[in-house]
Amino acid sequence: MKTVIALIAMPGNEQLADALATALACKRLAAEVHRFPDGESKVRLIQAATGRDVGIVCTLDRPDDKFIALFLMAHAARESGARRVGLIAPYLPYMRQDQRFHNGETISAQHVASWISSQFDWLITVDPHLHRIKQLGQIYTIPNSVVQAAPELARWIQTHIDQPLLIGPDEESEQWAGEVAALANAPHVVLTKTRLADRQVRLTLPSLDRWRGHTPVLVDDIISTAQTMIEALRQLSGQAMRPAACVAIHAIFAQTAYSDLQNAGAHRIATTNTIVHPSNQIRLDGLIAQSIRTLTT
Amino acid sequence: MKTVIALIAMPGNEQLADALATALACKRLAAEVHRFPDGESKVRLIQAATGRDVGIVCTLDRPDDKFIALFLMAHAARESGARRVGLIAPYLPYMRQDQRFHNGETISAQHVASWISSQFDWLITVDPHLHRIKQLGQIYTIPNSVVQAAPELARWIQTHIDQPLLIGPDEESEQWAGEVAALANAPHVVLTKTRLADRQVRLTLPSLDRWRGHTPVLVDDIISTAQTMIEALRQLSGQAMRPAACVAIHAIFAQTAYSDLQNAGAHRIATTNTIVHPSNQIRLDGLIAQSIRTLTT
Repeated sequence: MKTVIALIAMPGNEQLADALATALACKRLAAEVHRFPDGESKVRLIQAATGRDVGIVCTLDRPDDKFIALFLMAHAARESGARRVGLIAPYLPYMRQDQRFHNGETISAQHVASWISSQFDWLITVDPHLHRIKQLGQIYTIPNSVVQAAPELARWIQTHIDQPLLIGPDEESEQWAGEVAALANAPHVVLTKTRLADRQVRLTLPSLDRWRGHTPVLVDDIISTAQTMIEALRQLSGQAMRPAACVAIHAIFAQTAYSDLQNAGAHRIATTNTIVHPSNQIRLDGLIAQSIRTLTT
Repeated sequence: MKTVIALIAMPGNEQLADALATALACKRLAAEVHRFPDGESKVRLIQAATGRDVGIVCTLDRPDDKFIALFLMAHAARESGARRVGLIAPYLPYMRQDQRFHNGETISAQHVASWISSQFDWLITVDPHLHRIKQLGQIYTIPNSVVQAAPELARWIQTHIDQPLLIGPDEESEQWAGEVAALANAPHVVLTKTRLADRQVRLTLPSLDRWRGHTPVLVDDIISTAQTMIEALRQLSGQAMRPAACVAIHAIFAQTAYSDLQNAGAHRIATTNTIVHPSNQIRLDGLIAQSIRTLTT
């Protein structure tokens, strides 16, 4: 029997859900999330999900406030007769808390993954922040599929940047930055990074003498406070390179991070549409749609 | 073996937790909740919970943003060796969504209760909003204890109000308003209420001719938008009664509700300390402490 897919958009995810529905030639079910004056959420699935494999589209940046409505919508979809209920979370949170750094802490990545796994039948995300946890399957017990943004980042860099030199933020990112560079047919180097606090990092730039005349392209998976990129831009400013570009997958941009990065001399800033943001220039709709199709058939 | 209790305060609940710890002659364990710039929460239990019956104090007004940190703290307590982990939530949310009012809605009260029941070993709360659900045990599967605020409300009214006439907000509250009135040795009437929208109600006031010279005391379990009390004050204004008082258990006061209620002519406003608010005048620490002692032994 052929699976019939349907999508539901949580607030703020309507545009992506519509693009995915078009790519998949499926329906986006009318749904609403209401916030009562007392701060509680009410969800309603207006069109029935009967017999369908339902994907709820909900990117999870700034996640804490979003979970309850998402959890209630998953229940509403099941009660409305969905055959399976999956989560399409282009940005997957709590992946950076993958270790007990001090006594009395808890490994949030694991607990959030267990909870999401208990509420959904499948998961699709884009490049989760994998570090000590090497694969989503170590913490997520449901079928999952990870979309790789690297080819689209590389394509954007090739199209928009003259003579790019890719610069990865730290040694951990060496492999990934190298992959994007190879796909973009460009050279790459990586910085040496020491994190001193939430908003403070120390970076060491390798010698760039070989790359005079190139355009530095700082690449990273997530821009949150943007402190890493800002510090890298500061170090680049003395190097007589061309004006730098910043390219990332997930545009969190905490508080003033976006204007901070612009003011620090980022000539261009490009991100993907995993989190809606003015810097979005790289659409991943096609890859995400493909991933949904593969996982649900 | 004697149970050794310990408490943990979630942010904003420190004062109540300290009062409870004093009443119970137990320890409040040092703990912290940090919010990262990207909006994720990190919890840390600094003092170990080894072998203790731990109560996490976390009132749950404006609840959505609070659940993840609470859930992570419960995990931290268990991993730190707690024998049991209970929840002390003086205000219990999602009790008003106790029915599927329209197709495609879900009964949030049930789902939130199931989720809390899966994370905690016991629950203590103060007068949850029970309507179609008659008892917490219908939706909470863990041992629970409900603190009744009525005696403390009655005591406050007796001490502070001259010749009180208690006025309940609707027929549903008849029994409860009558109980508070009986404890305060005062007469009572109830309004007839029709809810038109989130912030709009229609009230009908019974004849108050018998009670000229009394002080109207509007009583309710929750003040959220305060629209019910404001409408009641409006109807009272033509009745040549003394200036009215407003007394409630849970001081949610959404947005401008507190000043709205003051401006509508509430002469005095008194609430309990289940939710920290400037109107708190009625402390329930003693009753909550007693309830903890009973449930954990």
